[in-house]
Amino acid sequence: MKVLVINGVNLNRLGSRSEEYGNVTLADIRSETAELGKKLKADVEFFTSNHEGEIVEAIQNTDADGIIINAGAYTHYSLAIADALKDKTCRKIEVHLTNIYAREQFRRTSVLSPCVDGVIAGFGKNVYLLALTEISRNG
Amino acid sequence: MKVLVINGVNLNRLGSRSEEYGNVTLADIRSETAELGKKLKADVEFFTSNHEGEIVEAIQNTDADGIIINAGAYTHYSLAIADALKDKTCRKIEVHLTNIYAREQFRRTSVLSPCVDGVIAGFGKNVYLLALTEISRNG
Amino acid sequence: MKVLVINGVNLNRLGSRSEEYGNVTLADIRSETAELGKKLKADVEFFTSNHEGEIVEAIQNTDADGIIINAGAYTHYSLAIADALKDKTCRKIEVHLTNIYAREQFRRTSVLSPCVDGVIAGFGKNVYLLALTEISRNG
Amino acid sequence: MKVLVINGVNLNRLGSRSEEYGNVTLADIRSETAELGKKLKADVEFFTSNHEGEIVEAIQNTDADGIIINAGAYTHYSLAIADALKDKTCRKIEVHLTNIYAREQFRRTSVLSPCVDGVIAGFGKNVYLLALTEISRNG
Amino acid sequence: MKVLVINGVNLNRLGSRSEEYGNVTLADIRSETAELGKKLKADVEFFTSNHEGEIVEAIQNTDADGIIINAGAYTHYSLAIADALKDKTCRKIEVHLTNIYAREQFRRTSVLSPCVDGVIAGFGKNVYLLALTEISRNG
Amino acid sequence: MKVLVINGVNLNRLGSRSEEYGNVTLADIRSETAELGKKLKADVEFFTSNHEGEIVEAIQNTDADGIIINAGAYTHYSLAIADALKDKTCRKIEVHLTNIYAREQFRRTSVLSPCVDGVIAGFGKNVYLLALTEISRNG
Amino acid sequence: MKVLVINGVNLNRLGSRSEEYGNVTLADIRSETAELGKKLKADVEFFTSNHEGEIVEAIQNTDADGIIINAGAYTHYSLAIADALKDKTCRKIEVHLTNIYAREQFRRTSVLSPCVDGVIAGFGKNVYLLALTEISRNG
Amino acid sequence: MKVLVINGVNLNRLGSRSEEYGNVTLADIRSETAELGKKLKADVEFFTSNHEGEIVEAIQNTDADGIIINAGAYTHYSLAIADALKDKTCRKIEVHLTNIYAREQFRRTSVLSPCVDGVIAGFGKNVYLLALTEISRNG
Amino acid sequence: MKVLVINGVNLNRLGSRSEEYGNVTLADIRSETAELGKKLKADVEFFTSNHEGEIVEAIQNTDADGIIINAGAYTHYSLAIADALKDKTCRKIEVHLTNIYAREQFRRTSVLSPCVDGVIAGFGKNVYLLALTEISRNG
Amino acid sequence: MKVLVINGVNLNRLGSRSEEYGNVTLADIRSETAELGKKLKADVEFFTSNHEGEIVEAIQNTDADGIIINAGAYTHYSLAIADALKDKTCRKIEVHLTNIYAREQFRRTSVLSPCVDGVIAGFGKNVYLLALTEISRNG
Amino acid sequence: MKVLVINGVNLNRLGSRSEEYGNVTLADIRSETAELGKKLKADVEFFTSNHEGEIVEAIQNTDADGIIINAGAYTHYSLAIADALKDKTCRKIEVHLTNIYAREQFRRTSVLSPCVDGVIAGFGKNVYLLALTEISRNG
Amino acid sequence: MKVLVINGVNLNRLGSRSEEYGNVTLADIRSETAELGKKLKADVEFFTSNHEGEIVEAIQNTDADGIIINAGAYTHYSLAIADALKDKTCRKIEVHLTNIYAREQFRRTSVLSPCVDGVIAGFGKNVYLLALTEISRNG
Repeated sequence: MKVLVINGVNLNRLGSRSEEYGNVTLADIRSETAELGKKLKADVEFFTSNHEGEIVEAIQNTDADGIIINAGAYTHYSLAIADALKDKTCRKIEVHLTNIYAREQFRRTSVLSPCVDGVIAGFGKNVYLLALTEISRNG
Repeated sequence: MKVLVINGVNLNRLGSRSEEYGNVTLADIRSETAELGKKLKADVEFFTSNHEGEIVEAIQNTDADGIIINAGAYTHYSLAIADALKDKTCRKIEVHLTNIYAREQFRRTSVLSPCVDGVIAGFGKNVYLLALTEISRNG
Repeated sequence: MKVLVINGVNLNRLGSRSEEYGNVTLADIRSETAELGKKLKADVEFFTSNHEGEIVEAIQNTDADGIIINAGAYTHYSLAIADALKDKTCRKIEVHLTNIYAREQFRRTSVLSPCVDGVIAGFGKNVYLLALTEISRNG
Repeated sequence: MKVLVINGVNLNRLGSRSEEYGNVTLADIRSETAELGKKLKADVEFFTSNHEGEIVEAIQNTDADGIIINAGAYTHYSLAIADALKDKTCRKIEVHLTNIYAREQFRRTSVLSPCVDGVIAGFGKNVYLLALTEISRNG
Repeated sequence: MKVLVINGVNLNRLGSRSEEYGNVTLADIRSETAELGKKLKADVEFFTSNHEGEIVEAIQNTDADGIIINAGAYTHYSLAIADALKDKTCRKIEVHLTNIYAREQFRRTSVLSPCVDGVIAGFGKNVYLLALTEISRNG
Repeated sequence: MKVLVINGVNLNRLGSRSEEYGNVTLADIRSETAELGKKLKADVEFFTSNHEGEIVEAIQNTDADGIIINAGAYTHYSLAIADALKDKTCRKIEVHLTNIYAREQFRRTSVLSPCVDGVIAGFGKNVYLLALTEISRNG
Repeated sequence: MKVLVINGVNLNRLGSRSEEYGNVTLADIRSETAELGKKLKADVEFFTSNHEGEIVEAIQNTDADGIIINAGAYTHYSLAIADALKDKTCRKIEVHLTNIYAREQFRRTSVLSPCVDGVIAGFGKNVYLLALTEISRNG
Repeated sequence: MKVLVINGVNLNRLGSRSEEYGNVTLADIRSETAELGKKLKADVEFFTSNHEGEIVEAIQNTDADGIIINAGAYTHYSLAIADALKDKTCRKIEVHLTNIYAREQFRRTSVLSPCVDGVIAGFGKNVYLLALTEISRNG
Repeated sequence: MKVLVINGVNLNRLGSRSEEYGNVTLADIRSETAELGKKLKADVEFFTSNHEGEIVEAIQNTDADGIIINAGAYTHYSLAIADALKDKTCRKIEVHLTNIYAREQFRRTSVLSPCVDGVIAGFGKNVYLLALTEISRNG
Repeated sequence: MKVLVINGVNLNRLGSRSEEYGNVTLADIRSETAELGKKLKADVEFFTSNHEGEIVEAIQNTDADGIIINAGAYTHYSLAIADALKDKTCRKIEVHLTNIYAREQFRRTSVLSPCVDGVIAGFGKNVYLLALTEISRNG
Repeated sequence: MKVLVINGVNLNRLGSRSEEYGNVTLADIRSETAELGKKLKADVEFFTSNHEGEIVEAIQNTDADGIIINAGAYTHYSLAIADALKDKTCRKIEVHLTNIYAREQFRRTSVLSPCVDGVIAGFGKNVYLLALTEISRNG
Repeated sequence: MKVLVINGVNLNRLGSRSEEYGNVTLADIRSETAELGKKLKADVEFFTSNHEGEIVEAIQNTDADGIIINAGAYTHYSLAIADALKDKTCRKIEVHLTNIYAREQFRRTSVLSPCVDGVIAGFGKNVYLLALTEISRNG
């Protein structure tokens, strides 16, 4: 089983972003998710980019059995990423570190959500672990 | 650690509801969640009701360390349940069997979400298991 | 053939409500509908409640061939009742004593209508008789 | 007692319209309604037109005791027909073959409804029969 | 003179609710209002419930000369309670502990307000006293 | 100087329309306007129709120096008539017997207004006289 | 017969305003209107102010039989002037030099219109003459 | 203790305004409020103006312990008065003679409400007395 | 192969319409389209009307293999024409001389578009030629 | 070169306003701007008023080469001031002490902006200095 | 004559996208368009990219006589591409394989359309051929 | 002191863009800003890109004391750039060559503005100079 974890725009800056994101870093997420992947016999790959087009192509090109995606601010307007996800038939889970439904109005709507299997939001770095657990269970 | 699982309106009918809910029953959810509870050393209680006021009081009266709530259609308009959740300081997770963000327009907004810690939606009965896992991890 | 007639919130007060409802009482409706039921060989049951949850459960639990429902003010916001109706496969008719489409703006929209077979509104107590006639014809 | 049944735009094509209208034809409606008219001692006249102005004039010129109108797509925007109905003091019932409140968004609003006594929608050709029954009862 | 004081959903939790409500309790409100009632020769009854249907029925069934109602979150969507109030001809005053017009957007609109004589909001427990004073003055 | 006075849908029924139109008839308007026309040396023609297409063609075909138009309910949605007016370079005045800006919401907007020189509303049959006066002055 | 002509904000600048107002001045309007007043045996008074409160008081204090008001930009938001007009029972006509319904979106709505007898817009300085003619006719 | 009572636009006309205001006059309000002030040992000053700017300055310049303000139609759009109130730290109560929440749509929203401590609406001249009582109690 | 070219309201006036339509006439369109029809072995018929009902019936009655329709202003509101198109199973192409998406806001939406196979807009009389080419290619 | 600096409603209270304005006073602004004026050889005049009508007239009457305007809360609704600015052909700059686009929703829109040459917002008292610099550079 | 055909985001995946796009591939489009180009003596270049910025630059840098653009999902929100098109004076045609006006709501609006000469939508790969034909005709 | 000047999408084309931008070029802006930088002892760097992701990274990676950003069309929808700015604690000024608040509706809203210290718009290339002046003053 292969799982692709995509982190989108500004997520490379985790750890030095504003306070609602806490002090978790992308390295932390990466190592904890990789570790869980080993336990669950899942081959976990990471892709991180600030570029909308690159994220679209990462989705297009992967042969993973599951995609875990946190697209950052692109979540709220990138119909390009939404279309890329829609065209993909593997398992797809959208994750968010924070509870986006309790933040500024524009963050409460995701154009990606109608194109994924489900959404997990609000539990910090654990959202990646829960998503991986869910994909493995159904793998 | 004590966890209260609340199932709201029309969820007692799972198994005979319209097709988007599949054929899982509340009994299935209950037994699988209880079983996981045992593994995680969590005391899992279940409360199921079609009555908004009873759900409000179940929230008010519990001394659980965590609440997992699927309020059914009340999700979309019950500011009463939202206020009850807001006044509670334990861990609170909103779950949905289906990916509500990919369904009819009125189901895409939850008035409860701003009052919980996070949301898990779209993975059938597994959403309860993921929520319980998350609460235990932080318990 | 069995038909369940559900009257919702504040309809127990018919006869002493504001003028747009005239002076018809629930007892009048009940007796005229029952009488017509006899003629049409239909077993007519009545359920009246001010409680949203009880109305949901009356719908869930009935084994009637047809439901005639006037939900009162719940018509305009109870997605809970709407979901209960949606999950039911018998004949379902929504009725209103008054022409709700000619009243205050908030009364012109019914969240129940997309979940029933049809709607009859505006003919006072006759709406129940027309609905019963229609259900019998197709019974 | 005289009743005018008005069928508006595209209703002359019933039987060969898209599937949501079933295979009932205007001839079927006409014959069944006429037959019921005889039973109820009502003189039933039929007027069918695709022309908004002609429908307006049919309403203006009739001396019927009751009007049953299915205006087709004009239902949703013809303020001209609405005004013609508003100026008429006889009994007026709006009918629809389908449950318009469960169809496309633009079909859920009728500009005619505030100008009639009541609305019956969703029971196929029976809506004409129910309307005629109601008018006769109050004639 | 008889006055019914209705406290709706989550108000039984006053004193342990979030900070905008201060630390006043329902018992405090009750005792101060009762005391003022004695001075004003008004027979003050209290009804407290988390259940929408029970609040509707409390309104339907009372023979009080005045109703003071704080419906909690039901204020913002319960057309059922609004209709119950509308059908009642005694003096009716809506009260709120906080200035709801200065809080979250959804709390700024009350569906009850068009059905009462007036509104008093923003002065903590004093709103009950002012309402009782007003009802007595006009009793 | 030639002036065309167009009266649109339902205006043939003036005198027997609902009360806000008073008891003035189209004949009254015609005779008073014609009389004023004589005084002002203007050749006044009248065109009255319930048919949108005929009104469009009356506008297309006239060689009048001025058009006075009361389109009735078409005022609020007939972009067809609006386009016909827009393509005409003579003087064009929109008139209304009633103050449409003080009536139902849908009557407050005219799609014709952006295509005419000016609007006169609210003075009963005098609006025709004022419009004729204005056209003559600038003729 | 006495008529008060009120010109509101920025109208003292007519003649040097932007091109859509042409080169007519307030003095021109004044002299032509006064002249017509003489012919019609009407005592015409003029009041011009840039101050909302002063316009309100001019309306409150006049004992004229008719008011002709061009409130300038206050037309679009001064509920204070609207209320002053509403409380006055004499004849009231709103005028505009330009066809406001064909200009910027914000100029198409007048909060004053529901409080006057009628509206005349789009004929330059003639709107004052037409209004005076109308008031005299009904005086 | 000093209290400033501000009455805004068109309130000088109370007694001769439209019927929803009854026949109470500003003089009545003044004398009853002054009398209550004496009882409560409060020094009550009155300021009445139709001018938005003057009301702003009355608020800026006062050293009162409490402000009672009925701004008339300015309530619905004067952000200038709202800002003046917001900058003031004394007790501030907004009052309305009528239940504004049951009137025309534009009267249901107050731009002042977010800048005051509370609102009292709907009890005729008593709203001033209740407001004064409340300010005295907390003085 | 038979193709029906429908030109709707005000299109008979091409050549003398406002400047955005250029100086092309309906005769030009007709002759060029007919000429192309000959080349493509398509039997091209033309129907032109200002009457909504006639356009509906032209659509209902044709046995053409393809319809090319430019409905003029009816494009933006005629649900009647939309329904007539929807009920037809031949090839259907909507054309516009101008780029309607770059014009006034109301012209940017077509109620017909969801009922046709495709849309061609913005290339003057060529839109008819392109549409005919497309229909022939798939004939 | 002459420059008029207009400060509108509540700006006379700078220094004692709520915290987002800091502790700068109008006197500070005046002295620093005057000082810069001297350096730039610009004759700087100041006009400060809480009265909308006075601000309108200050704009109408000035013969300055440039206007720097901070209208306070009038910014958001005074179409009267907007019209006065629009009619003026000198250089016009709108300034705001705070970044209005990052504050409450109603402060994010300025009705004045479409009528000025440019906007400078968010740099405290420096906005006046930058505006003066800009006007001088182009003088 | 030189024509640039731009295919935007996710169009490289044609042939394996969801069913509404059929099984046409970008290679098919390329070869058929190139072939037609030869016939029409047009030099056809192709540019395909998933990157918004690259599409902007392809537009900026081309010296083509015509641009045919299918921007994929960027159609609906890329004001950057819209501005690039707006700044270009060559012939510009927007194409879509599907009838976007009959699909999900968000696909019905194109931010590009106001910046092109015309739009062709709904005829599968033929839209490119029609666009090329049109450009050649006017070349 | 170090200042980064970011120019976003399509700004590389200044000088050959549509007329509202005048004939200033990016080279002009660069040289004048650099020259001023020398005077103010500020080290001014320039970054220009059409790629959203590159702009995000330019913001993430800089160690400048101040950022001056003109994001072009990304201003109106790039929440990605907005988030990058929000996470940066140096001085941030948004600039626009034109007065965006006086242009097309979609250009009047900036998603970046809530994330910067202030905005300067409408003075052509001078906006960069004013921004640099402001940053230097506070450096």
